[in-house]
Amino acid sequence: MHASTRLTGVFSPVVTPFKADLSPDAAKLVSICKWMLSQEVGLAVFGTNSEANSLSVGEKIELLDALAEAGVPGQRMMPGTGCCAFTDTVALTRHAMKIGAGGVLMLPPFYYKGVSDDGLFASYSEVIQRVGDSRLKIYVYHIPQVSNVPITLSLIERLLKHYPGTIAGVKDSSGDWSNTSAMLERFQPQGFDVFAGSESFLLATLRAGGAGSITAMGNANPGPIAKLAREWKNSDADAQQEKLNIVRQTYSKFPVIPALKAAIAHYSGDAGWATVRPPLVNLGADQTRALIQALDGIGFTMPGLK
Amino acid sequence: MHASTRLTGVFSPVVTPFKADLSPDAAKLVSICKWMLSQEVGLAVFGTNSEANSLSVGEKIELLDALAEAGVPGQRMMPGTGCCAFTDTVALTRHAMKIGAGGVLMLPPFYYKGVSDDGLFASYSEVIQRVGDSRLKIYVYHIPQVSNVPITLSLIERLLKHYPGTIAGVKDSSGDWSNTSAMLERFQPQGFDVFAGSESFLLATLRAGGAGSITAMGNANPGPIAKLAREWKNSDADAQQEKLNIVRQTYSKFPVIPALKAAIAHYSGDAGWATVRPPLVNLGADQTRALIQALDGIGFTMPGLK
Repeated sequence: MHASTRLTGVFSPVVTPFKADLSPDAAKLVSICKWMLSQEVGLAVFGTNSEANSLSVGEKIELLDALAEAGVPGQRMMPGTGCCAFTDTVALTRHAMKIGAGGVLMLPPFYYKGVSDDGLFASYSEVIQRVGDSRLKIYVYHIPQVSNVPITLSLIERLLKHYPGTIAGVKDSSGDWSNTSAMLERFQPQGFDVFAGSESFLLATLRAGGAGSITAMGNANPGPIAKLAREWKNSDADAQQEKLNIVRQTYSKFPVIPALKAAIAHYSGDAGWATVRPPLVNLGADQTRALIQALDGIGFTMPGLK
Repeated sequence: MHASTRLTGVFSPVVTPFKADLSPDAAKLVSICKWMLSQEVGLAVFGTNSEANSLSVGEKIELLDALAEAGVPGQRMMPGTGCCAFTDTVALTRHAMKIGAGGVLMLPPFYYKGVSDDGLFASYSEVIQRVGDSRLKIYVYHIPQVSNVPITLSLIERLLKHYPGTIAGVKDSSGDWSNTSAMLERFQPQGFDVFAGSESFLLATLRAGGAGSITAMGNANPGPIAKLAREWKNSDADAQQEKLNIVRQTYSKFPVIPALKAAIAHYSGDAGWATVRPPLVNLGADQTRALIQALDGIGFTMPGLK
């Protein structure tokens, strides 16, 4: 699966560790990325769950360099590079190409609301033309409940027509299966790879010919999610999916990013992992106890996490 | 009015001119800022209508330097400095202090939605503590229909309690007079300066003891708006307000940022002014004709604009 240059399977929007002074902890990021790779989960660093939009472009570039220097293979990376200003998106995307990223996950500019498809098409066009690299693979990022700037089917159609080699796929985090399904039907046959934004749709996505899932739970539960991506044709696939759903439901009773970090802090024995950047807020002692109790209750572990 | 160190009156979120290659045109920005100052309108550069969130931090820093070098007085400036990442907000706010800005207009971090007041308080706290400058005056920016991250009354109360010298006021762009009114009643008596986000509320704001208005129309119609801010106790104040409203209503039939730039292009005779950055889209020939026809119809001009 990973020999191809096309990214497929499961990717994690890797949570970003911070030091006590809230600066990014590059060594710790390298360490958890290697753990995820060992579980056969790829690295969508700088996704929503990475607190990517609480990091400056300069901080992200430094983290990309640290990952590259530590030998993390670019081909297993799909960094988020979409910023509000296209000049930032260009700078970050160029750097992702420099370290050999297999693809980039690109939010639309998300400050101005009610913008037209013409304006979004122009945004992606500026970036593609200015980066000017035939190896560039863009996965557009549809997460309307956070960005408030949807990626419509007609925008994808237009982008694919103009940039067929570059517009490589989508992360659909809408949570709306009818939308994912429409993308799978209309665009996957053209080689546009559809990734569900939640592993709760992993089996359905793979059965419909999709590429996989880029999911927050890749941080917590990478092994079992990657296993289903490998074994989805097996007779126990529905049972595997059901087990994944139970883990997700347990986490979803808490604010997801602080909960993921609190769980990693707990299972790794490294309390510093619990730190988030504002405007997010750490989970707190009571909620952390409740989370761990709930996770223990379903027999959840993070095997191999250090 | 301007001898005091407190910013009052009318400010314009100055539209940002771009060259044909979409890079910011610093010389042209200096020129329009000087025109606005000549009309007694202050400079809230890098507001929403400045396409500030389509500019990188580095581009904004360069423009601030260009304004300072051109002799634009810092005390007449209230640059927007609120970014998604507090590290960016800190860098830009520090630079605004370096050029002597009288205040800064600060959006909350706006990517993550549904964040708590605790998280927003922590965001502003990080910035205030890291900038660490007793001269800093922050005007919080409430524009929920765009940021989707409201600044609540209870957040303001808490910020004022902890940072009474630094939390200087608000731009309320909610368009909800009941909210502006509540801010005026609760916080203006504590020296927290309330600016209406639209000049349609200018007279009401001044009558209720508020500081003035920071408004898009400051770009198009600065003289008459500043006149009302000076003469609001005169007997013709309601009539002046009504005239301002007619200009606003005429612009409001068009997408406001492209329309402001198209009008400036027309009345200055400099077609390059019409250019916006994606994701916004230039007004286009037909809409520009309709806009100018409508403006001519109400006898609108931009006296002194070059």
